Amino acid sequence: MAPLRSFVEVLPESHFPLENLPYGVFRPSAGGSQAEPRPGVAIGDYVLDLSAVAAAGLFDGPLLKKSSCFSQTSLNKFLEMGRPAWKEARSTLQKLLSADEPTLRDNADLKEKCLFPMDKVQMLVPMVIGDYTDFFSSMHHAKNCGTIFRGPENPIAQNWFHLPIAYHGRASSVVISGTDITRPRGQAYPTPNSPPYFGPSMKMDFELEMAAIVGPGNELGHPIDVNDAADHIFGLVLMNDWSARDIQAWEYVPLGPFLGKSFGTSISPWIVTLDALEPFACDAPRQEPHPLPYLAETKHVNYDIPLEVWIKPSGHEHPSLVTKSNFSHLYWTINQQLAHHTINGCNLRPGDLLGTGTISGPHEESFGCLLELTWNGQKPLSIGGSSRKFLEDGDEVIFTAACKGNGYNVGFGTCTGKVLPSTP
Amino acid sequence: MAPLRSFVEVLPESHFPLENLPYGVFRPSAGGSQAEPRPGVAIGDYVLDLSAVAAAGLFDGPLLKKSSCFSQTSLNKFLEMGRPAWKEARSTLQKLLSADEPTLRDNADLKEKCLFPMDKVQMLVPMVIGDYTDFFSSMHHAKNCGTIFRGPENPIAQNWFHLPIAYHGRASSVVISGTDITRPRGQAYPTPNSPPYFGPSMKMDFELEMAAIVGPGNELGHPIDVNDAADHIFGLVLMNDWSARDIQAWEYVPLGPFLGKSFGTSISPWIVTLDALEPFACDAPRQEPHPLPYLAETKHVNYDIPLEVWIKPSGHEHPSLVTKSNFSHLYWTINQQLAHHTINGCNLRPGDLLGTGTISGPHEESFGCLLELTWNGQKPLSIGGSSRKFLEDGDEVIFTAACKGNGYNVGFGTCTGKVLPSTP
Ligand SMILES: [Ca+2]
Ligand SMILES: [Ca+2]
Ligand SMILES: [Mg+2]
Ligand SMILES: [Mg+2]
Ligand code: NI
Repeated sequence: MAPLRSFVEVLPESHFPLENLPYGVFRPSAGGSQAEPRPGVAIGDYVLDLSAVAAAGLFDGPLLKKSSCFSQTSLNKFLEMGRPAWKEARSTLQKLLSADEPTLRDNADLKEKCLFPMDKVQMLVPMVIGDYTDFFSSMHHAKNCGTIFRGPENPIAQNWFHLPIAYHGRASSVVISGTDITRPRGQAYPTPNSPPYFGPSMKMDFELEMAAIVGPGNELGHPIDVNDAADHIFGLVLMNDWSARDIQAWEYVPLGPFLGKSFGTSISPWIVTLDALEPFACDAPRQEPHPLPYLAETKHVNYDIPLEVWIKPSGHEHPSLVTKSNFSHLYWTINQQLAHHTINGCNLRPGDLLGTGTISGPHEESFGCLLELTWNGQKPLSIGGSSRKFLEDGDEVIFTAACKGNGYNVGFGTCTGKVLPSTP
Repeated sequence: MAPLRSFVEVLPESHFPLENLPYGVFRPSAGGSQAEPRPGVAIGDYVLDLSAVAAAGLFDGPLLKKSSCFSQTSLNKFLEMGRPAWKEARSTLQKLLSADEPTLRDNADLKEKCLFPMDKVQMLVPMVIGDYTDFFSSMHHAKNCGTIFRGPENPIAQNWFHLPIAYHGRASSVVISGTDITRPRGQAYPTPNSPPYFGPSMKMDFELEMAAIVGPGNELGHPIDVNDAADHIFGLVLMNDWSARDIQAWEYVPLGPFLGKSFGTSISPWIVTLDALEPFACDAPRQEPHPLPYLAETKHVNYDIPLEVWIKPSGHEHPSLVTKSNFSHLYWTINQQLAHHTINGCNLRPGDLLGTGTISGPHEESFGCLLELTWNGQKPLSIGGSSRKFLEDGDEVIFTAACKGNGYNVGFGTCTGKVLPSTP
């Protein structure tokens, strides 16, 4: 099938052709912080303002015609409406933006109201996040961390192969791509006979993750079947689960990570829908032991999403590539994660964020964090001539991802953040 | 000082005299689910409707006169205003409700609008909870759990005495007292050579906790000083952190508790303010090793709050007392908890919930959960003639607490919940 054509220019390398149409929330820069946030989709180098499209009466399908979901400051209401509304919106927008469709193409006034150059908008966290959960679903990451911290014998705990391990993360400190991240202060392991270290983290790291955005939730006490899970997931974003390894190592026994993580988590602004990712579905890894019935899915798939991490040290002109991984390395699928999350009756709400955990591949070049890439600082990495054990002040970390279609990309743009020095 | 007198009848054993005035959010039962939730304070067996008091123009202080904080469906806006507004509200309400003050006392119409019998209202979770954190601050609880799970040598991990250990909990499943709790299903430890158990939890437990409600929050990257922490805490509630010990034991390595907790957490409806608790302040336990400077407070106090847990098995006419503990057993104070929570820059928001962790005292009669009381089921407890290792379906668990003043109580009412059988 030939790529779809839009009247909005979409360069061949763009992440945002008509096949993608990812959702975000933005504010036109011209309005400053006064301008109301509103939902939009990305098309080429433009953002289509969905509140303006709705106001013009162009959502004419049965589910969206009378809905106020696009005159909200977040996507939560649209997320709650579920897959039928998402499909209706996608088909309306693909038609509206297509090269053959005059409605918007030939209406200069309307185009002026609806289309904003991407560099003239400010992107915001697109949903109210009631709860953020972070999984631990890459076997390679689990194995590497276990080996580094507990040695090569039984690096992966027995439970890991039976359930998608996860912990609750901090929702308040989830920030949008581009937000600077201040190096956290905290306690770290004491040396024998001395008090614990206290000061700026000396082992600040990134974690290459993606995260699912929950659509319709479930009532407390009513689990979601693994084979229905996909209908509760709207789409995916890139996520950097910034981590302070020294703080984490000292605090995490027995209740898990806390301050080693909660100082910031960055997400990319554009939610790529599962509908847009459908052409990139691929078999997920075979699971042995076979999962318990509540985790056994009839369609056990991942998506082929190539992932890259680049680091640009302060003063460097160009970023350097530090790892290449792929979403398809996940052992536990996002559907299994969601089904497991609710099996005890826990309720999910629209807008909840489910991080995959660090996505490491089998080889050194595909490890998803510096802890693994430098083997806990033992093998420093060369980054454009600088040496790195962990992140230094001024380092900018850039995640990017794009699925390669036949003549087009379905991309995620970037998820970036720069490390600021600790404040006293 | 003689007890304060209100024109509303307050029986001597009441938890809610003029000295208390705890805050909640309620809906008059007469209106059904149509009636708007609104803030109220408890006085004797009545609830004073703060939206009606505000509408009548009776909040005449400089901070509250023009505020819409009491015409909200949650307390978040009032929480955000901070201690000066809280003090102003307390002084206005103590005057308005006092026996000598005619404004409300002698206005039958207004009384009809403002005062609802407590048994004619439905209480709701009084704030939007952005994030819920659960600490682990009773040394006796930490020691007992460590001994049960890892043996009597070094039951408490080295880090415990240096920092208030905590984990992120699940905000979506925090429910109001009186909500039934469905027994969770989940995985538990396999026996050798068998797959993990899957089914209804066989070790369902309560955890006797209290929780602090955050007032004004902090900006990401800007920690709160431990000596300012009290100004960021509005008050306390009772909290039952329902726990499934078998699910928890199997899942919690290495990232901490997840589904063993997230099926439900109950809180009592009335937030007792730190101002009301002030007369019950008492020295907190001496800390050795001395805490790091960021945790060293000039005023290291707890509150003397006697706590009780009662269980009423299905079919029993009366509940039986199963434990008596006290808030003052906490090793880490709520101010230390809050300061630690933000030291890495993590931002708190108004309405955040900070659980203390299970509050166990030094003696068997003061242990705060069945895990400790029955020593993981090894020493069943007799409850009104029934034997209990863990909770059974139909058991109602009732927490209550009241500080004993000179001729009055400052009480918390109750935090209750009944265990429903697991659904298939
Ligand atoms: Ca992570
Ligand atoms: Ca707890
Ligand atoms: Mg993080
Ligand atoms: Mg709980
Ligand atoms: Ni949350």
